[in-house]
Amino acid sequence: MIKAGIIGSTGYAGNEIVRLLLGHKEVEIVWYGSRSYIDQKYAEVYQNFFQIVDAKCMDDNMEELAEQVDVIFTATPQGLCASLVNDDILSKVKIIDLSADFRIKDVNVYEQWYGIEHKSPQYIEEAVYGLCEINREQIKGKRLVANPGCYTTCSILTLYPMVKEGLIDPHSIIIDAKSGTSGAGRGAKVNNLYCEVNENIKAYGVGTHRHTPEIEEQLGYACGEEIKLIFTPHLVPMNRGILVTAYANLKKDVTYEEVKAAYDKYYEKEKFVRVLEKGVCPETRWVEGSNFVDVNFKIEPRTNRLIMMGALDNLVKGAAGQAVQNMNLVFGLDETEGLMQAPMFP
Amino acid sequence: MIKAGIIGSTGYAGNEIVRLLLGHKEVEIVWYGSRSYIDQKYAEVYQNFFQIVDAKCMDDNMEELAEQVDVIFTATPQGLCASLVNDDILSKVKIIDLSADFRIKDVNVYEQWYGIEHKSPQYIEEAVYGLCEINREQIKGKRLVANPGCYTTCSILTLYPMVKEGLIDPHSIIIDAKSGTSGAGRGAKVNNLYCEVNENIKAYGVGTHRHTPEIEEQLGYACGEEIKLIFTPHLVPMNRGILVTAYANLKKDVTYEEVKAAYDKYYEKEKFVRVLEKGVCPETRWVEGSNFVDVNFKIEPRTNRLIMMGALDNLVKGAAGQAVQNMNLVFGLDETEGLMQAPMFP
Amino acid sequence: MIKAGIIGSTGYAGNEIVRLLLGHKEVEIVWYGSRSYIDQKYAEVYQNFFQIVDAKCMDDNMEELAEQVDVIFTATPQGLCASLVNDDILSKVKIIDLSADFRIKDVNVYEQWYGIEHKSPQYIEEAVYGLCEINREQIKGKRLVANPGCYTTCSILTLYPMVKEGLIDPHSIIIDAKSGTSGAGRGAKVNNLYCEVNENIKAYGVGTHRHTPEIEEQLGYACGEEIKLIFTPHLVPMNRGILVTAYANLKKDVTYEEVKAAYDKYYEKEKFVRVLEKGVCPETRWVEGSNFVDVNFKIEPRTNRLIMMGALDNLVKGAAGQAVQNMNLVFGLDETEGLMQAPMFP
Amino acid sequence: MIKAGIIGSTGYAGNEIVRLLLGHKEVEIVWYGSRSYIDQKYAEVYQNFFQIVDAKCMDDNMEELAEQVDVIFTATPQGLCASLVNDDILSKVKIIDLSADFRIKDVNVYEQWYGIEHKSPQYIEEAVYGLCEINREQIKGKRLVANPGCYTTCSILTLYPMVKEGLIDPHSIIIDAKSGTSGAGRGAKVNNLYCEVNENIKAYGVGTHRHTPEIEEQLGYACGEEIKLIFTPHLVPMNRGILVTAYANLKKDVTYEEVKAAYDKYYEKEKFVRVLEKGVCPETRWVEGSNFVDVNFKIEPRTNRLIMMGALDNLVKGAAGQAVQNMNLVFGLDETEGLMQAPMFP
Repeated sequence: MIKAGIIGSTGYAGNEIVRLLLGHKEVEIVWYGSRSYIDQKYAEVYQNFFQIVDAKCMDDNMEELAEQVDVIFTATPQGLCASLVNDDILSKVKIIDLSADFRIKDVNVYEQWYGIEHKSPQYIEEAVYGLCEINREQIKGKRLVANPGCYTTCSILTLYPMVKEGLIDPHSIIIDAKSGTSGAGRGAKVNNLYCEVNENIKAYGVGTHRHTPEIEEQLGYACGEEIKLIFTPHLVPMNRGILVTAYANLKKDVTYEEVKAAYDKYYEKEKFVRVLEKGVCPETRWVEGSNFVDVNFKIEPRTNRLIMMGALDNLVKGAAGQAVQNMNLVFGLDETEGLMQAPMFP
Repeated sequence: MIKAGIIGSTGYAGNEIVRLLLGHKEVEIVWYGSRSYIDQKYAEVYQNFFQIVDAKCMDDNMEELAEQVDVIFTATPQGLCASLVNDDILSKVKIIDLSADFRIKDVNVYEQWYGIEHKSPQYIEEAVYGLCEINREQIKGKRLVANPGCYTTCSILTLYPMVKEGLIDPHSIIIDAKSGTSGAGRGAKVNNLYCEVNENIKAYGVGTHRHTPEIEEQLGYACGEEIKLIFTPHLVPMNRGILVTAYANLKKDVTYEEVKAAYDKYYEKEKFVRVLEKGVCPETRWVEGSNFVDVNFKIEPRTNRLIMMGALDNLVKGAAGQAVQNMNLVFGLDETEGLMQAPMFP
Repeated sequence: MIKAGIIGSTGYAGNEIVRLLLGHKEVEIVWYGSRSYIDQKYAEVYQNFFQIVDAKCMDDNMEELAEQVDVIFTATPQGLCASLVNDDILSKVKIIDLSADFRIKDVNVYEQWYGIEHKSPQYIEEAVYGLCEINREQIKGKRLVANPGCYTTCSILTLYPMVKEGLIDPHSIIIDAKSGTSGAGRGAKVNNLYCEVNENIKAYGVGTHRHTPEIEEQLGYACGEEIKLIFTPHLVPMNRGILVTAYANLKKDVTYEEVKAAYDKYYEKEKFVRVLEKGVCPETRWVEGSNFVDVNFKIEPRTNRLIMMGALDNLVKGAAGQAVQNMNLVFGLDETEGLMQAPMFP
Repeated sequence: MIKAGIIGSTGYAGNEIVRLLLGHKEVEIVWYGSRSYIDQKYAEVYQNFFQIVDAKCMDDNMEELAEQVDVIFTATPQGLCASLVNDDILSKVKIIDLSADFRIKDVNVYEQWYGIEHKSPQYIEEAVYGLCEINREQIKGKRLVANPGCYTTCSILTLYPMVKEGLIDPHSIIIDAKSGTSGAGRGAKVNNLYCEVNENIKAYGVGTHRHTPEIEEQLGYACGEEIKLIFTPHLVPMNRGILVTAYANLKKDVTYEEVKAAYDKYYEKEKFVRVLEKGVCPETRWVEGSNFVDVNFKIEPRTNRLIMMGALDNLVKGAAGQAVQNMNLVFGLDETEGLMQAPMFP
């Protein structure tokens, strides 16, 4: 059995890693890290695990942890993983970092958008960007995986085949994204109170959201040039789910079949990306609780643009599910182990 | 007292007209039309009006109605108003039509997008497009007002000053709109059931939504040329509210102050359009229950685009409130009468 | 014009007092008190009031306030009003206290259930319990009104006629109450985050909720003996609304007509209490945004019990609306002034 | 592999049986019955199963089905299973009936509360009431299982130990239950539309709900005498979950430890019933998506009553999960197979 430790296990993403690993045949969790709840029973913080998880919360001592486990998930705020990791630790355990610390290759871009100093830039080069469907081969066996952001995963997978195949002008991309509230985390903030979120929709971080450079970098690799795009996130009154509606100018006249073929080229064999049937729009309800990403598109001939849509569960494929998928790849397990539950509806 | 009749009073928009007119000093409702509930007490259909409204529902006999009232609101599906109206009726009463029948000047465009034959195209020319802030003077005294659509009102008011002032390229406009579920009406459809809408967000009518040509026509007048744009509506799990996030290419370098000045030029004196302070995004919660539209913008210098946002309550400024505002203009009353309630939060 | 000041104007109840007083013909608000937001614009805290309220938040200096206003609303945590009030202040202004400080006549009961020392028990005797429908005459002209709690108002009005007329055994009363989340206030607590409240229902404060002794005292007056009852509140994923379902043993065989007559005896002439028609259950959606309380009952002959139900908007009749109604009574105004808006649905 | 057929697979309960059986090692689904969607792909009706379930919907021909499968789940309206079943069918397959047809032993009670004639009363005697924790031994090997109702399962499991052990007076029981909206089914009714359910709570079926006699019968067996009780269901704006708050008079003075011991006596070894720790109230969020039932209690010494609470997911332990649990028992499989997923939060 692979032994796993989770730093930041009492956030929503941490809680979801626990749920998924409990259903994973090859892994056992031996360390529930949570600075805020040390010595408190994990099942008191998340009572869904009452009589299922008996452990108490531990601190986030990564040195100690590296002695005890085979893989560490860091589901913590930006900066923490970069401040803890070192050569010794990396020589002993695999790290799946759910924060942004190792996602962006240009440390200046990271420091500019995140507003903090990067504490261990020497590992950025080595870290692999863990978007499994794109970087599968590079992830296998790696010791440091930068697990992509939730908006990022949805945005990139929705746009990737079009950018890669050159069907759209990458400089014309506009991404309008909508997320459920679990993406905002479990911190006690007035803006995330029930009465503030319920019966409301708003854009936020307009022109400044930190997932922007991450999307730009990855899609830039796909088209082989540097790009700038617009990314606008919105907060939706629901617990889970991200929907991306993306717009771009078509480079030439295309048929439905041509665009469909380009999507199929990349996703037909993918277990977790479902290209929907003609005319069917992705909806977050159909992926809830699962690791699936549903994508589809609509050609808008009147304006010669392409509308691309993608939906996923931000806590699964957008965080914990992809982290487990990365772990499976790193350890050479079946990539889908622990992740094949059907979406739960309603 | 002005006597009002409502055809389609048992839909959500009809119900909201009732609520607003009950607070209007110069109007009394004398006809609650509802084909589906004839002879049933209105307050049994909408129990919020128990002990407030004593009337029973009547049929939608517009001839008869024209004898009894001064103004008719038609809050009915497309085609009904056009099939009922005639010279005799128009000579006797004012009509505020909340359907799309008289919104689009080109009857071919109407018939193509709505898929029905227009039964009285002879009145299209005469009808005024009742977007009060734009067409105020033309509305006064008119006998047939085409009350704008909910998405349309929000989209046009968000974009109008930019298009009119030529700050953005009107051929680059992309409108990503999000609406609460009351916009889908009170019909018993599986797709609008609680469990289908809750915990979900989806796009619908992608590239085909009927509000598209209405927005294109009105913004086309503003810039003096025919335009095509993308309009993508989304369904959000909340009762009320529309948020529009619109994108367009800037025609030239602009400062915040220049854009702000352009918005202020059109809206500074408007009672119901609020241009928010710098950096504040419109949110539907802040306009709920009111006739306000909140708008704001963000310059995105990296891509030289402008992001424009607007929020309103789809049942008030997006339907019943604007209808009452139009009625006030038609009859020469204070334009804000019955409409000055502050938004209700939470 | 009556000048009003609000201490605690940035809580949900305070915000609702503002909304209601803005629609009140005889009052103007001159003091928006809020210790947490001093010098910040009120409309920045509650953007629904943008371009409607221009004032900045002030501290909660009651001495100073008493010089400037005719009536003070205290929408603050327990203990604050009792700690601020004094003879001088009471000689200058009317006080409508929305906290529990002056609701319970026995100071020991107050101190036991609230766990704090009462700082001015000398005013308890003088204070009138502001449940307008029961104590109307005593409220008129009073200088200190204890505005009832939200659960309490709903519970008492639902049960009062039955207890007063002796139709039920007051010692058998069980009240199962359900509330929207605005009742929990605007404090930043994990338990009130969107993701914690949404898709959940729970009981809380079982056997210990502080509204219990308040209900017991008032219903005890109605039946002329001391009573103990069970009161169990539940948190419901919605913004506004309280529903009470109450159970009690019938003292004798009764007919629908007899019970109905007892309700009508007390409520037929009441503007804000609506006894629904036979078989219609109160629902919170039909009173939202209004000062109405809907009540009804069902005889359960198989067990010889009576099921009584009541619904109100916790922020209106359960807080701010009743406070305004009390103010109207105190100043001899029309009791319904500023409160006659129809409920808003959906 | 056990072959399973589902009649009524396109209702919410049917959809949940599919989700659970897809994760069950010993079962494959070979018949997706749905009268309304014959020949349509199942994954078009429930797009969560896109690329997971390839089958088309079939009619509800039970004769034919009996030839092809080992077990039939009937997730259909009352009366259908009773009208289809016969000796030949019962000799060939096991039937787990999720409707009420075989739950109530007294056919007169069934016909009175359900208002329909029972078409095959001859099988009532044979059918076992499939409340696994109570009737485990009798269920094993049975060919006709009456799967309990959702409210019923929650109510009985919450009250059973207290009634069985004689700690409460069974004639004093009052059950106040709250349910998410999936319990109302997927039928297109105005009352179940998003805007009607959202921001609302209401009681319904007061004194007349059909789960009442089912609860009374089963708890009557537990105490050995016929009982009548009050059961009041409420509709809550959430998808899943039932919370029961039950009240009864204590027969004698009891301590926390005595009551706890009585609960533990029945549930300590149960996998799916969790007696929570002292002072922790059951909440539906902690059981969502799982087969768990959380129960707890509070002694109310002031009135000498006991407050008992229980929470479950109405689609899992309240329907599909218990049906699978029953199937496991019938076929001699591990009772928990396919049912051990941890609850999903948020």
